[in-house]
Amino acid sequence: MAKQKKAPRPKAETPKGFRDYFGTEVTERTEMLQGIEAVYHRYGFDALESSGVETVQALGKFLPDVDRPNEGVFAWQEADDDGNGDWLALRYDLTAPLARVYAQHRNDLPTPYRRYAMGPVWRNEKPGPGRYRQFYQCDADTVGTGSVAADAEICAMLSDCLEEVGIPRGDYLVRVNNRKVLNGVLEAMGVADEGQQADVLRTIDKFDKVGEAGVRELLGKGRLDASGAYIDGVGLAAEQAEPVIAFLTSKGATAADTLANLRAAIGDSAVGAEGVDELEQIAALLEAGDYGSDRIEIDPSVVRGLGYYTGPVFEAELTFEILDEKGRKRQFGSVAGGGRYDDLVARFTGQKVPAVGVSIGVDRLLAALREKGRMSGESEGPVVVTVMDRDRMADYQAMVAELRQAGIRAEVYLGNPKNFGNQLKYADKRNSPAAVIEGADEKDRGVVQVKDLILGKKIAENATLEEWKERPSQAEIPRDQLVQHIQKLLKGDS
Amino acid sequence: MAKQKKAPRPKAETPKGFRDYFGTEVTERTEMLQGIEAVYHRYGFDALESSGVETVQALGKFLPDVDRPNEGVFAWQEADDDGNGDWLALRYDLTAPLARVYAQHRNDLPTPYRRYAMGPVWRNEKPGPGRYRQFYQCDADTVGTGSVAADAEICAMLSDCLEEVGIPRGDYLVRVNNRKVLNGVLEAMGVADEGQQADVLRTIDKFDKVGEAGVRELLGKGRLDASGAYIDGVGLAAEQAEPVIAFLTSKGATAADTLANLRAAIGDSAVGAEGVDELEQIAALLEAGDYGSDRIEIDPSVVRGLGYYTGPVFEAELTFEILDEKGRKRQFGSVAGGGRYDDLVARFTGQKVPAVGVSIGVDRLLAALREKGRMSGESEGPVVVTVMDRDRMADYQAMVAELRQAGIRAEVYLGNPKNFGNQLKYADKRNSPAAVIEGADEKDRGVVQVKDLILGKKIAENATLEEWKERPSQAEIPRDQLVQHIQKLLKGDS
Repeated sequence: MAKQKKAPRPKAETPKGFRDYFGTEVTERTEMLQGIEAVYHRYGFDALESSGVETVQALGKFLPDVDRPNEGVFAWQEADDDGNGDWLALRYDLTAPLARVYAQHRNDLPTPYRRYAMGPVWRNEKPGPGRYRQFYQCDADTVGTGSVAADAEICAMLSDCLEEVGIPRGDYLVRVNNRKVLNGVLEAMGVADEGQQADVLRTIDKFDKVGEAGVRELLGKGRLDASGAYIDGVGLAAEQAEPVIAFLTSKGATAADTLANLRAAIGDSAVGAEGVDELEQIAALLEAGDYGSDRIEIDPSVVRGLGYYTGPVFEAELTFEILDEKGRKRQFGSVAGGGRYDDLVARFTGQKVPAVGVSIGVDRLLAALREKGRMSGESEGPVVVTVMDRDRMADYQAMVAELRQAGIRAEVYLGNPKNFGNQLKYADKRNSPAAVIEGADEKDRGVVQVKDLILGKKIAENATLEEWKERPSQAEIPRDQLVQHIQKLLKGDS
Repeated sequence: MAKQKKAPRPKAETPKGFRDYFGTEVTERTEMLQGIEAVYHRYGFDALESSGVETVQALGKFLPDVDRPNEGVFAWQEADDDGNGDWLALRYDLTAPLARVYAQHRNDLPTPYRRYAMGPVWRNEKPGPGRYRQFYQCDADTVGTGSVAADAEICAMLSDCLEEVGIPRGDYLVRVNNRKVLNGVLEAMGVADEGQQADVLRTIDKFDKVGEAGVRELLGKGRLDASGAYIDGVGLAAEQAEPVIAFLTSKGATAADTLANLRAAIGDSAVGAEGVDELEQIAALLEAGDYGSDRIEIDPSVVRGLGYYTGPVFEAELTFEILDEKGRKRQFGSVAGGGRYDDLVARFTGQKVPAVGVSIGVDRLLAALREKGRMSGESEGPVVVTVMDRDRMADYQAMVAELRQAGIRAEVYLGNPKNFGNQLKYADKRNSPAAVIEGADEKDRGVVQVKDLILGKKIAENATLEEWKERPSQAEIPRDQLVQHIQKLLKGDS
């Protein structure tokens, strides 16, 4: 008989584009989410947690076709007996599920409905460096009111969130613009064709790179770019470019100046005037809440999302500089954004429901705080009680029980205790502040040895001889003073 | 030309077996997870968050076959150009991913590796009442040590977790048993056939229901059950049942008694003796940590999981009674369980790695606390500043900004302010403690009206006339005393 072939061992790997998070990578994010949640809650927003799985029908945007059901989302068909099960998919953001939840439960929800949600979302996209197919979102939305007070409130809340998680005032700016003003500009330009409007939007997006003259060229005949390629223009007459240029350069020294410039840019467009009025109201409401231009400002150069949103849009940017991988200074950039979108629920109910929301990029915020050294990324390890005598495990367990009772993170070494060096290496790997040693001799004399590993590390790095003498890194103390001694050591004054 | 048919509106529904969680359903669970996390952390466990998606190969247990790839897990094939993409699946628990993570990262992880993980898992099962296809798990495991000190530690930690989240001592019990003792009993019975061993395990599981005589019948010829059906027996001789009965009835008044009874039950089985020794050591270690039998006890009647685990097993049970849906008293039952499993990582690496872990059933614990009235399920709503004059929105925003600055949950009413009754209905729906009113007249006089909605509710329910007179439910106060007044009101002493 042939010997049965063994199945090959499975590979221990995450799927492509996914990763594991360890220790402080998890806890620092949890703390940040808790901070943001506290602010959302204080503003009257209620928690909502929908499941990770939705019907593809409810998600809407990414209906799977027959050949490639997985485009953009992770999707699969429910198994049922006749092969006609529903298509299900992992949510790709927190807004599409909100629309479904609101449509489903609207009769039980207050109006307006303020909700926050935080959790993982999944994208079936090609992974890249630092780009993962599962990541966190952290959103707040107000559904069911068209009042600009809701928009202003979300801008103020975003500002509070950033300060709550450790971005000081001055290191960020929330910038506000309005899609309606841009619509007014398009009217003033006399551009009614949708294709041309999209071209103008794309050109505006390039303002940062090509500047005023470049935008004029791109709106007109076209432009030779830096690589030598010729970029076709939108084909507008030279004077049609004026409102766009006026719009893009309308930022004044004060909000009042900016608003006056915008009014000039939109000419006599009604929708444009409505947009400027909204910005004016938002500015007044924010000022009443004492949110000045050091925190939130009207800024017509915010163009990201203008294509998607229907009214006010906003973006939070970190204003400090960091060094990129090549050592060049650059701005850290955007960490949150949002705006007003009024058509979300209509898909389900046929009724338009106004809504405005914000999404905070938690992973980018964490990266920023680590970059600035405001988060250590280092974990506070446990005190390690070493095992000198395998038969006295109960004594060691009693020590950690005492330490934990006092709220101190502590553990007994549970590996093979034979090699004492391995125990200290373990404590080092765990970033332990202290190791406790109690051999037979110590036990007889009613004492324990405490090795100060924080000081030990410091000495290894840069302590002076005086420091070393003043605070020896190992102390013998009475057994019954263990907890107090460790408490002092953790405070840094043993 | 035929008019284009409109696509039908999508249904606003969760997929079958999934649900949404609102407000306190989310925040109470978050608080519970935070409490458990704090205990896990204090015991030296580090956080791990793996992604929701794993390769089917790594999950192992539920390999999809060609016809029904979705059995047990939600699985799908990655799209690639030649149709040979990996099969991916949502994780069905947190232990299988731990095995993958440990095998993948073992060279970078400390030994032993203590980790905790909490998050949703997904099961592709038929949903039922109260049974969902996405739910939370909250696990802690120690990988890489066979020391029973690790098992004892996890029992102590489980006890601490339950008290941390609000189950007082006396209302729960952690019960410990050992698979090796059962193996010893099987040896003492002379049952070596694996099929018969499984039959004996199944019979032991029925002890609660059928009692000692029933177990004897089921191990022998069989038994007529209550419905009149005849259940075939295992077919053992009468004297072979003795060790099982001795095992099942071995619980004594003290741990020492129980251990002595167990030693008698296993006869001269070596593996059985090893199992009893382990239980003895666990009992000694727990006693050293001051975890007495009011919290943790050796209990041979714990049989759940004995088939799965390889050494000590444990289960936490809530001991208080609740009323079931028919008004009958019943024990609340198990809320957590775990044990030692030594073969998990070997699938990947070929090396056996000993491990022990616990999983806390967060949703059942929440249900228990709500049942006992220890969690309100009611949210603390925001103070609602009503809108009497649409043009003075900035004034109202300034009020909520002040309240939030003082840490008070507050919001301006953002719906249509025309109907004042709707504003108060909204405040009621949000469970608001107070509504603030400032009309033109109040504004002129520099005052605001504050409606005490907590008292309002009380009066509506059961307050006496005296209470009502003493503490009128609406007060006119100077505008600049708004924050202090609300603070007092929230403390219940306005």
